[in-house]
Amino acid sequence: MATSSQPRFQFRLRVYRDGGIAIGPGKIALLEAILQAGSITAAAQQMGMSYRRAWLLIDELNRALREPAVESAVGGARGGGTVVTEAGKELIRLYRGIEATAHAAAADDIAAMTRMLAD
Amino acid sequence: MATSSQPRFQFRLRVYRDGGIAIGPGKIALLEAILQAGSITAAAQQMGMSYRRAWLLIDELNRALREPAVESAVGGARGGGTVVTEAGKELIRLYRGIEATAHAAAADDIAAMTRMLAD
Repeated sequence: MATSSQPRFQFRLRVYRDGGIAIGPGKIALLEAILQAGSITAAAQQMGMSYRRAWLLIDELNRALREPAVESAVGGARGGGTVVTEAGKELIRLYRGIEATAHAAAADDIAAMTRMLAD
Repeated sequence: MATSSQPRFQFRLRVYRDGGIAIGPGKIALLEAILQAGSITAAAQQMGMSYRRAWLLIDELNRALREPAVESAVGGARGGGTVVTEAGKELIRLYRGIEATAHAAAADDIAAMTRMLAD
């Protein structure tokens, strides 16, 4: 008899404002990809989205923040280079930290919910 | 000058298994609606979904669990009545509890993230 795979618990944090998602899993993953890949072009390619879509997401994110998370992608002053700012890195750190904290704090209830699942 | 609305932080917990969502916000909201409305028909109407869609979601949920969350909707023995079982109520309690615990535990980091948002 086939048994089910191990369940996977996923928390997703979204910050809504003015009817839209100011900060969410898609924007944070894109920010991490830019940090790793060094450009919006490479990050967009890696995530399977168009450059235009990636640029719009970053532009939205920057507008939602007091200080931009990514520089020169919007301003374009440095001719192609894309830098995740200190504010951007802090945002990633906080976002992933919140997810980890949530998981850890809810561990007992998550275990109890796991026990309710069929084998 | 127009100012932005207050940000709203939303945690969403999803339990993935066998490539699908075994438990997620849609199924829990539907379960709560059935508990309140007393039937799948009324709950589906309230949530703006078809009876068929609601039935399929509940069937999926019941199959994912050791004990069913809803009875007689699937079995159909009581001729129309729909009962959220003790297991179903426990699932709602755990799910909403996990969300609340996550919010409370991450309150400091959520406040720090709020301070990063533009006015």
